[in-house]
Amino acid sequence: MKPALLAALLISAAPAIAQQSVASLPPPVVTDPRIAALRDNARDNDRYAWDVVEGLTTEVGQRLAATEAEARARDWAVKKLTAMGFANVHVEPFDMPVWVRGTESAEIVSPFPQKIAVAALGYSGSTPPEGITGQLVYFDSVDALRAAPDSAVAGKIVFIDHHMIPTQDGIGYGQFGAPRRQGPTIASLKGAIGVVVRSIGTDHHRNPHTGVQYFTDGAKPIPAGALPVPDAEQLVRILKRGQPVTMHLTLVSQKSEGGHSGNVIAEVPGRDPNAPILLIGGHLDSWDLATGAIDDGAGVAITTAAAKHIMDAGRPLRTIRVVWFGAEEPGGFGGNAYAKAHGAEKYAIAGESDFGADNIWRFATKLSTTDPTTYEALAAALAPLGIAKNDKGEADGTDVGPTIEAGAPWISLNQDGTRYFDVHHTPDDTLDKIDPMQLRQNVAAWTTVLAILSGGIESGPKQPKRR
Amino acid sequence: MKPALLAALLISAAPAIAQQSVASLPPPVVTDPRIAALRDNARDNDRYAWDVVEGLTTEVGQRLAATEAEARARDWAVKKLTAMGFANVHVEPFDMPVWVRGTESAEIVSPFPQKIAVAALGYSGSTPPEGITGQLVYFDSVDALRAAPDSAVAGKIVFIDHHMIPTQDGIGYGQFGAPRRQGPTIASLKGAIGVVVRSIGTDHHRNPHTGVQYFTDGAKPIPAGALPVPDAEQLVRILKRGQPVTMHLTLVSQKSEGGHSGNVIAEVPGRDPNAPILLIGGHLDSWDLATGAIDDGAGVAITTAAAKHIMDAGRPLRTIRVVWFGAEEPGGFGGNAYAKAHGAEKYAIAGESDFGADNIWRFATKLSTTDPTTYEALAAALAPLGIAKNDKGEADGTDVGPTIEAGAPWISLNQDGTRYFDVHHTPDDTLDKIDPMQLRQNVAAWTTVLAILSGGIESGPKQPKRR
Repeated sequence: MKPALLAALLISAAPAIAQQSVASLPPPVVTDPRIAALRDNARDNDRYAWDVVEGLTTEVGQRLAATEAEARARDWAVKKLTAMGFANVHVEPFDMPVWVRGTESAEIVSPFPQKIAVAALGYSGSTPPEGITGQLVYFDSVDALRAAPDSAVAGKIVFIDHHMIPTQDGIGYGQFGAPRRQGPTIASLKGAIGVVVRSIGTDHHRNPHTGVQYFTDGAKPIPAGALPVPDAEQLVRILKRGQPVTMHLTLVSQKSEGGHSGNVIAEVPGRDPNAPILLIGGHLDSWDLATGAIDDGAGVAITTAAAKHIMDAGRPLRTIRVVWFGAEEPGGFGGNAYAKAHGAEKYAIAGESDFGADNIWRFATKLSTTDPTTYEALAAALAPLGIAKNDKGEADGTDVGPTIEAGAPWISLNQDGTRYFDVHHTPDDTLDKIDPMQLRQNVAAWTTVLAILSGGIESGPKQPKRR
Repeated sequence: MKPALLAALLISAAPAIAQQSVASLPPPVVTDPRIAALRDNARDNDRYAWDVVEGLTTEVGQRLAATEAEARARDWAVKKLTAMGFANVHVEPFDMPVWVRGTESAEIVSPFPQKIAVAALGYSGSTPPEGITGQLVYFDSVDALRAAPDSAVAGKIVFIDHHMIPTQDGIGYGQFGAPRRQGPTIASLKGAIGVVVRSIGTDHHRNPHTGVQYFTDGAKPIPAGALPVPDAEQLVRILKRGQPVTMHLTLVSQKSEGGHSGNVIAEVPGRDPNAPILLIGGHLDSWDLATGAIDDGAGVAITTAAAKHIMDAGRPLRTIRVVWFGAEEPGGFGGNAYAKAHGAEKYAIAGESDFGADNIWRFATKLSTTDPTTYEALAAALAPLGIAKNDKGEADGTDVGPTIEAGAPWISLNQDGTRYFDVHHTPDDTLDKIDPMQLRQNVAAWTTVLAILSGGIESGPKQPKRR
């Protein structure tokens, strides 16, 4: 094709671009080839992350906050992080209440007797062992429940419906999570004897999605459970027949004070111990229904693997601190305890991985305003992984949140959440849900971030690789 | 394009076709427009099938053979078939043993304590209420178990693995079903105290796939359970660590004689009561873990809807008999009882729908050899639905099998089984797994078959439509 013809085509196809003068573009940002090599090696060859998440989910399994299983997970973490060559590996314990589920079941007593699958929400009140029986009353949203007169609810079992669909950024979790988060309190204040919600999930499997809720505003704890999506839809069909529907609900659980949890901390020591720290991590605890592979075995695995790749390359100027936070699920206890102990330290960045293990598709950071040069360097180095910069992004993360509140600059690497809420908080959160290729893309992204923010990595005598 | 050029292109693109003389082709088979209209109306507008399967799964739910739930399902069926306008609606009862599951759980005791999901297989032996504890011994196939010395198995809990993958024709169900079907007997004969098998399934959800097995060759019943695929994979990972693995297994169940089931029979009476009958149907019972939507609520719904479309069109020459067979899952009791009572009657065809509700993609029939003209008429009329003729196909179907054995000519309409074994016999076999559009394609295919084999439909005074 003749150059003149090509130029004409470009102008007609994309006038806006063609009219922008090349001279007015900012200078090109070129990624340091050593950083690009670290990134590409992690993307193509990382085994650390799989090794961590496979080991944790296989050798410990579920690790509910403040239970003996979470304590075993901390022991496992200390052993693993030490074996990988991290420094200052230690546990920082804290106290918290402990909630554990017991026997659970639900049945429609009439008009069409049948079993319905159910799981208690965190901090649910307990039924007596023999369960409770009540008439169901339906609401299609928390707002509909809030608007209802007490007389429509008192003495009944409330059923709150919704219709969450999958999204890449997980935006629905806030709005459609309301039945789980506020539903039980509102139902209790109106005199309900129990509450069941359609799971905050986007799948169609017989898996209830558990999750935390608190009884606030003086509401008395009542039994509160999540129904799998197919069971919620079945209940809607049954209710549509127009006859009164009676449910028998057994949700035995136990809450007690005096539980213990802890954060597991490990470091890649920086050459300058006074330089601001790079804080990354995920949470060690999981819900009790599965082995917590995507929530959040993957998060501790990804961030630990990234730190390990820097360690393999040499000594960073800044210390990298990896935290496997305890007790995130019941309310961010580990993140609060960490900030209380370490919030006043100086940080170069704080970020966490807690949204599964699918590809990271965009990132955002406070550095976009405070340090635009570094922001553009991050953007350029992450782009080959398919990650776009998101100028409008915000800080997120339950665990690093309190430390960010205390002043640490933040970075958010957003994973694709399209299939996250199919599995989130269900019995299905198992290792097979992690795609090893996408897991490596995550490791590559975090390795890139650490390398760019490290202050420079000085190669030293190679440490023996331990796996 | 010039005709000469088109011809040249055709010849170069497909020489084999181009070289076949048009004169040597058989005469074209043209579908009677009235039959095509019936077919297309069913494909585009059928609501009967959805109505049946939605009603049965919602208002009855699970309907395990020989239980009170299956009896409720028969009552529902009689009411429904009568309301739809069928004639001679009645139940033909038979006796059989009844097996029901009780409390079930499994845990790894050591080296990595954790829960494993499990469901008993049909006719499993029962553990005591407190369960049994034993060391696991792994086999990657039934053949490996068969080859093992008794001493490797005696006193242990056998775990049989396999690797079934999805296929369109479901071919793997035979071979990879061996761990479920023969595994428990072989394990028992070698002195095992229990057996768990990787579910005969192709999904990755925490759903066990139950199913029937019998203890033969004098084997003593032992507890026999199915593990969901993720749990079986977890067990393999745990075993690969090389330490002895101890499992605690609770599979309480109860088997007793003196149960009752029955076949529900309904007819569209033919104008000639002596003409051979068109026998179609599916099975009414389901496993107890779900509402039995694809297995086999869909089957009774599809065949019933097809018969209803003929009824709506007028009176066929031949009687159409629809059977909702009882107790198929525990071993084809309904099909055997039917053949015992009716096997000697004269049939024009016998066929059943019992492979889900996804699109029918091919068909086969004995008529291909005994009545090639009708075979070609069927092929021509089914082709617009995307259904290919399968000259090498065979009779299938547990329920119509004994009647075919007794001499009835058979027809098999094969559904796409690619996703069938994701759901088959699991808690996930619920209404949401049925795609209404594919369900209608099934109804259209069966309507077409009935119309062609009806001997002619005479329009009569329209009966009032009842839904």
